[in-house]
Amino acid sequence: MSRLVIIGGSDAGISAALRAREFDAGSEVTVVVADRFPNYSICGLPFYLSGEVPDWRQLAHRTEEEITGKGIHLLLNHTAKTIDTANREVTVMNSDWQGNQLRYDRLILATGAVPVRPTLPGIDLSGVYLLRTMEDSFAINEHLRTHNLRSAVIVGGGYIGMEMADALTHRGLAVTVVEHGESLPKTVDQSLGQLVSDELRRHHIQVITSVRVEGIAKVGTQLSVIGSQGFQIAADLVLVAVGVQPQTEVAKSAGITLGLRDAIRITRAMETNVPDIFAAGDCVETWHRLLNQPTYLPLGTTAHKQGRIAGENALGGHQYFAGTLGTQVVKVFETVVARTGLRDDEARNAGFDPLTVESTNWDHKVYYPGAHPLCIRVTGDRQSGRLLGAQMVGHWHTEVAKRIDVFATALFQGMLIDDLNHLDLSYTPPVSSPWDPIQTSAQAWVRAQESSHDVVRTH
Amino acid sequence: MSRLVIIGGSDAGISAALRAREFDAGSEVTVVVADRFPNYSICGLPFYLSGEVPDWRQLAHRTEEEITGKGIHLLLNHTAKTIDTANREVTVMNSDWQGNQLRYDRLILATGAVPVRPTLPGIDLSGVYLLRTMEDSFAINEHLRTHNLRSAVIVGGGYIGMEMADALTHRGLAVTVVEHGESLPKTVDQSLGQLVSDELRRHHIQVITSVRVEGIAKVGTQLSVIGSQGFQIAADLVLVAVGVQPQTEVAKSAGITLGLRDAIRITRAMETNVPDIFAAGDCVETWHRLLNQPTYLPLGTTAHKQGRIAGENALGGHQYFAGTLGTQVVKVFETVVARTGLRDDEARNAGFDPLTVESTNWDHKVYYPGAHPLCIRVTGDRQSGRLLGAQMVGHWHTEVAKRIDVFATALFQGMLIDDLNHLDLSYTPPVSSPWDPIQTSAQAWVRAQESSHDVVRTH
Repeated sequence: MSRLVIIGGSDAGISAALRAREFDAGSEVTVVVADRFPNYSICGLPFYLSGEVPDWRQLAHRTEEEITGKGIHLLLNHTAKTIDTANREVTVMNSDWQGNQLRYDRLILATGAVPVRPTLPGIDLSGVYLLRTMEDSFAINEHLRTHNLRSAVIVGGGYIGMEMADALTHRGLAVTVVEHGESLPKTVDQSLGQLVSDELRRHHIQVITSVRVEGIAKVGTQLSVIGSQGFQIAADLVLVAVGVQPQTEVAKSAGITLGLRDAIRITRAMETNVPDIFAAGDCVETWHRLLNQPTYLPLGTTAHKQGRIAGENALGGHQYFAGTLGTQVVKVFETVVARTGLRDDEARNAGFDPLTVESTNWDHKVYYPGAHPLCIRVTGDRQSGRLLGAQMVGHWHTEVAKRIDVFATALFQGMLIDDLNHLDLSYTPPVSSPWDPIQTSAQAWVRAQESSHDVVRTH
Repeated sequence: MSRLVIIGGSDAGISAALRAREFDAGSEVTVVVADRFPNYSICGLPFYLSGEVPDWRQLAHRTEEEITGKGIHLLLNHTAKTIDTANREVTVMNSDWQGNQLRYDRLILATGAVPVRPTLPGIDLSGVYLLRTMEDSFAINEHLRTHNLRSAVIVGGGYIGMEMADALTHRGLAVTVVEHGESLPKTVDQSLGQLVSDELRRHHIQVITSVRVEGIAKVGTQLSVIGSQGFQIAADLVLVAVGVQPQTEVAKSAGITLGLRDAIRITRAMETNVPDIFAAGDCVETWHRLLNQPTYLPLGTTAHKQGRIAGENALGGHQYFAGTLGTQVVKVFETVVARTGLRDDEARNAGFDPLTVESTNWDHKVYYPGAHPLCIRVTGDRQSGRLLGAQMVGHWHTEVAKRIDVFATALFQGMLIDDLNHLDLSYTPPVSSPWDPIQTSAQAWVRAQESSHDVVRTH
């Protein structure tokens, strides 16, 4: 009987545990969970804080009983402190600093990521928050509940920043987002970012770009956020959301090789450099299917896939991670922004000869009520015609997410952009056009490619 | 300079003309249009009749000016009567029976389909309608507008039948749908058909299945529809929507080979057996990508693709039709039903060893407001694990159509069902789950395949 220990009880850890038990019913699986919230949807925290999810318990992907019902042992409120790789033992500690040794035959590290805590004057002031864990969200919620807050500044215009801008607006606060980049979110090109900023502003959010926050000060009962170019604004609450970093101290101290941004270096079978130790999720480097090299791209979808593979392989399976495409989507008020694959600059850095073409079409036949414009940017290799990426912005009900997924499926398969025109996609006037906007955008790309080649046809 | 004549001004004909002019700006392109409505969206007729599209002119994919602006000659209100293939001449006739000869270098037949008109007693009675053309819809609309109609019977529970049930309910009529099959629509399996019937009934439509209509009689001021098993119902209006058939008399009389259901037999380059005559759209046999043989599957999406290929190849291009997967979708009230590929019986007839597995999941994380169940049936080959088809029913705002399109893209590429689990699909709680329902349904299929193989694993 294999003793499998998994450190981490979020997406990757629980996926690994579930797959391990499914793959080998004789395995003994223990998951070490740092808090009392195994398998919670941290992607759901903004919706709890907005009030749209009234009870935090709803955020559990599964209840504790569902997990233990699968024969998985949960060791809650325990943190792994050291790994003795020679003796195959993990030392764990509970919140009272009581230690315990766990022997393992196989170990999976799924320690996740933590928010980047910038070295900023005032970062430790009361009323300044980071958001990653259930406890973080309880603290923010309690602060909102017990104070009569009227304004908030969000430092960082990434996904969490935008979702929290939406959430705090929902809670009645006047919100300002401060982003040091030229547009937000940084994951899409500026013209699409502009559409997202427009949506934020339409909901009375102040969007400040090209400003780097330099400090936070207490001024009277308020906080003052100070930034570059003379920027200064007062607020009752400050949320700092400037990205995450892998949590890999224990792995490092055990002699496990780290890579990009100190994420754990793994094979595509989720093996670390130490025999019988696997790793998955936000704490590892992720294989990029288009770049053919590792990257650091922490996403819940990837964590689930990698966890599943680690769980199977730890018990003798032979699964391989097919690679990420960086597919991601976020909803801000009524607008959805999504992307997959490479953008122009990323493609160029990877040695392609990229061409990016933008087109806007109605999501469905405009004569049928409720049509909205869909803005799509397609990136492909000018020489080969190969699809390299796509970005899209549209109304929540224009199937943006699954349209990006059609691109993601085509990318996964290495299709040419012109191949998209041959796909047999579904059509009825309330959902699309005879040529889906995916195809119209592909045709626009092909025309641009042809004219950029100065093709002259003679017949 | 090539003289290209195209017979037919709907989806295939206009697509061919546009592509021809784009491909060869020197070509002389004439489109013979049977009525005065070139390039109208016949898929939109139910939405005009429902009142959701207030002005029928909105149904034009393009205006007449947009078409002629591309250098395309439109010959409206003309019907092709004969083709002299030796002298490359088409005889056309206007509504006053005035004839005209058109010489061509290349000819494209895009004559479309007509509704099947069953040999039914009473089919010619006033108040009994078929629906295909703009004029048909004007006649129905006029009848609705000028009479105080209170009830309608729709014979046939296909897409047009269901959409018209929705439309006439919208207009305030009490509607009954009579379908001779055991469930509707026939394009999906019975368990999904049940969900569609539930939606119709929820909107007070009477759904009658397993009844074959045998005749229509005039009884007082009303019509009486009489069917098998003693069925009889009175109504003010009857719509007969029992499918379409290719319109190929002219092709046949010119010696062009016909195939299945008298559709024109073509190569994958859209060539007929007669040199320099091409054909496309609802009047032709369609290559099926999975069956590797022709079928008759008239769809607007296919007509557009085939028209584009015919237009290019008629002027010297070398495009090939990649084949249909039979991808289709229809919206009935708030419910969308979609499919792609083969169903169990179709797969079995084609020599596969099919397994179909149904699963139901929330379209997005259930803690976020507005989640709806998505019912998915996945069909694959038990031996190879290859994806063969998928069917789906869900709420209009659950991205059913584009989820089916992810399946359609995977099918197009010949992917295995287990490959779907490796796709990097987008996720945020308001639009999906970390494993998209597409993947959850794929996992359910793989588990069923494994247990049907009685796989015993030993470790």
